[in-house]
Amino acid sequence: MVQIDLNCDLGESFGRYKLGLDEEVLPYITSANIACGFHAGDPEVMSQTVNLATENKVAIGAHPGLRDLQGFGRRQMKISPQTAKAEVQYQIGALQGFSPSHKLHHVKPHGALYNMAGKDYDLARAICEGIYAVDPELILIGLANSELIHAAKDIGLPFAQEVFADRNYEADGSLMSRDLPDAVITDEDLAVSRVIQMIKTHSVQAHDGSMIEMIPDTVCVHGDGVKALAFVKKIHQALNDEGIEIKAI
Amino acid sequence: MVQIDLNCDLGESFGRYKLGLDEEVLPYITSANIACGFHAGDPEVMSQTVNLATENKVAIGAHPGLRDLQGFGRRQMKISPQTAKAEVQYQIGALQGFSPSHKLHHVKPHGALYNMAGKDYDLARAICEGIYAVDPELILIGLANSELIHAAKDIGLPFAQEVFADRNYEADGSLMSRDLPDAVITDEDLAVSRVIQMIKTHSVQAHDGSMIEMIPDTVCVHGDGVKALAFVKKIHQALNDEGIEIKAI
Amino acid sequence: MVQIDLNCDLGESFGRYKLGLDEEVLPYITSANIACGFHAGDPEVMSQTVNLATENKVAIGAHPGLRDLQGFGRRQMKISPQTAKAEVQYQIGALQGFSPSHKLHHVKPHGALYNMAGKDYDLARAICEGIYAVDPELILIGLANSELIHAAKDIGLPFAQEVFADRNYEADGSLMSRDLPDAVITDEDLAVSRVIQMIKTHSVQAHDGSMIEMIPDTVCVHGDGVKALAFVKKIHQALNDEGIEIKAI
Amino acid sequence: MVQIDLNCDLGESFGRYKLGLDEEVLPYITSANIACGFHAGDPEVMSQTVNLATENKVAIGAHPGLRDLQGFGRRQMKISPQTAKAEVQYQIGALQGFSPSHKLHHVKPHGALYNMAGKDYDLARAICEGIYAVDPELILIGLANSELIHAAKDIGLPFAQEVFADRNYEADGSLMSRDLPDAVITDEDLAVSRVIQMIKTHSVQAHDGSMIEMIPDTVCVHGDGVKALAFVKKIHQALNDEGIEIKAI
Repeated sequence: MVQIDLNCDLGESFGRYKLGLDEEVLPYITSANIACGFHAGDPEVMSQTVNLATENKVAIGAHPGLRDLQGFGRRQMKISPQTAKAEVQYQIGALQGFSPSHKLHHVKPHGALYNMAGKDYDLARAICEGIYAVDPELILIGLANSELIHAAKDIGLPFAQEVFADRNYEADGSLMSRDLPDAVITDEDLAVSRVIQMIKTHSVQAHDGSMIEMIPDTVCVHGDGVKALAFVKKIHQALNDEGIEIKAI
Repeated sequence: MVQIDLNCDLGESFGRYKLGLDEEVLPYITSANIACGFHAGDPEVMSQTVNLATENKVAIGAHPGLRDLQGFGRRQMKISPQTAKAEVQYQIGALQGFSPSHKLHHVKPHGALYNMAGKDYDLARAICEGIYAVDPELILIGLANSELIHAAKDIGLPFAQEVFADRNYEADGSLMSRDLPDAVITDEDLAVSRVIQMIKTHSVQAHDGSMIEMIPDTVCVHGDGVKALAFVKKIHQALNDEGIEIKAI
Repeated sequence: MVQIDLNCDLGESFGRYKLGLDEEVLPYITSANIACGFHAGDPEVMSQTVNLATENKVAIGAHPGLRDLQGFGRRQMKISPQTAKAEVQYQIGALQGFSPSHKLHHVKPHGALYNMAGKDYDLARAICEGIYAVDPELILIGLANSELIHAAKDIGLPFAQEVFADRNYEADGSLMSRDLPDAVITDEDLAVSRVIQMIKTHSVQAHDGSMIEMIPDTVCVHGDGVKALAFVKKIHQALNDEGIEIKAI
Repeated sequence: MVQIDLNCDLGESFGRYKLGLDEEVLPYITSANIACGFHAGDPEVMSQTVNLATENKVAIGAHPGLRDLQGFGRRQMKISPQTAKAEVQYQIGALQGFSPSHKLHHVKPHGALYNMAGKDYDLARAICEGIYAVDPELILIGLANSELIHAAKDIGLPFAQEVFADRNYEADGSLMSRDLPDAVITDEDLAVSRVIQMIKTHSVQAHDGSMIEMIPDTVCVHGDGVKALAFVKKIHQALNDEGIEIKAI
């Protein structure tokens, strides 16, 4: 049976600051990427989010980010590969401290770290080595066709290719830059149908009209607002209707 | 053969800020308490310090502290037991991320957290529960006779009683407050002889002249200056001369 | 004409984290206490909040807090008077950097700093000296009858006595501890009528039934939720109805 | 009489972490760039450093940096011009809070912020506008011939052109990248003679052999080590010997 994973960033609250509809989105997803205190999250939030995900039988993964709470990890920082490796190890370890099984399922870098590593092999490799050092069975979630995936392959780290429902792709399989018009697909029905096409045909139409290979293991969804939550329910329903099994990697 | 552990706080540098003579002190100690990024330390420093300790065959432990880099974790903060538990889990987990064996040897709370928990059973218990949740085989290092030791006993966590060479004790076995005169023993020979007495006789003279029971498992030494380092060498030599084996717990 | 100031904490967002209904509450208050980046707020939020308050002709004040974003400045920290003085100077100066007139109107310490200083004269005095050092014309807002008021009087710093609509008082004029039942007045009509009584008669009934002197210069209101906002509108209306002028100190 | 300013970064300690030979270098410099708590420094350090500089009759300036204590403000971060402006205003204001005259003399951006703004006009302009908003009489210190200088000119902010004794220049007047060989001049006598030449002839030889215009208002020196301190004394002596007056801008 054809299957797909739905992953979502969770545990992004910090102290008195609340963010995200974690409880509402958990029944519809299969993998949780839990913030580890650098770009979002704090130890109590992490503890609670691990518990929530466990209750919902959702796979628990670490979501390490840049050390930039004010910028939510979305601002590029020039960190060395050595720093990236150490910071990834630190954050995965910290989340593991809350795991009842003392194991995590996957790791997905966050924000600017994810984007920079998608294009920078040295950074990607350092991140993968950091993951491997903590636990070589952890699954890296990275942008499909990106340097993160190449680096994981090279060092023998399990990986899952991530696709985005609401984003257009270039002919080389990379994501269109958000600075370009048409980068974001606002038509929700189109977004859903594209995901289903990727899952069933392992291909998708790039922005220039050409067909590109795209083998999706997991789809990124969001739980940080009412509209985002509605879209998660919509795509969940559509996948069910198509007979596609929604299941953690 | 009579034996004792010498433990020392290490890995207290942060970014460009350097602190401590880690490499120099490592040959003379048997347990390293490595800062975990809250009161001191950063991921790269942690990684390097774990490597240094491993090379020196020194037991690796976590040294979790309050989230107060500016105050070096030495300023009391009223945190709830629930916060303490989560922050301890986080910091132990983070350090575990750098351990080649994916295991740590011990945990010693730092600074104000150590001092507050020594007198506050609820806080002590929360810390012990946080340690236990990460790994029930971890050894808590706590002030001899303190609430930390009581809490560890109560929940079945392994523990080691820590004594201080350079501090006077009250008749109830607690440390004299640093606010009192005579709290600190400045005569190094006296300090050394007191430690040897504690190890050999399981007793020490309190400040009021009475003899109190003191069963030391580990002695706290410091590596944050030339004078401290000289004292470590001195006590190391004296213990050897007395035929006391210096060995991790 | 009898008059009163309504002060409210504003600018408590941080990065992507949003907090408070600042725009909605501004038309009903006369003094804004703007967070300065230690317990809440960041430079951009401060800049925007100063602009918003200026547009609404609301007096701009600094709201310095403890350096504890995770605890929102509500957790007691044992800081020295010297540290408190420096941290208050820093935060007031930082906010002044955004003031179009290069002047601020008042300073109200936040959370645990406010509460600790209310009972600790040395801390209160250090805070007042920090304010005085930046600008001796700044008005300190402190709990009526507290050590903050005493310290301001002692060093010649202008001050305003703050009262709380929704809190009961002890016979000595101090706030009842939140740990006690009846500390908080949940009956909104009673809360409003007590404030009006304080303004008109300079007295209020303490929890033990005795009448105590209470000379209110300013009333603390909140804008951090829909219910809080409704109460601000209610007390604003009631004061108007009573012919009490609502005006900055 | 020909004159020059010697500026040095000071106040870079943080909490228990000590950095820099501030007291030793102050007698030899005329302008102090004081860290403002983002990349280094804390409120108490700032207070003490302002006092030290005042005692030494050294001009007090702000040294705002990126919010990155771990990276000491030396790692590039993609911040928006709007963020840069607000963060500069914040930091200048904060330091002003400690100035006995409630005025500062100059502002020199730090590390990666200085370097990025030297090449990015929009960022440079935002920084200059932040300075201007706090006090239009503040003197910007920027790399000679850089975008910082262009932006200051454009908005009418006073500025001073900074040169480096130990760095080679490209033919276009920009600093050679540290990634290139020969970027740094290690021959101290050559470094000193180049500075004297720049001061006297308003020109210097670029790396390709061509002569370029260089009008130095201030020379950057360092006080973060014994060797750096020795060089400050050496250049100070050489300037005296040449009859060049060392004086704040």
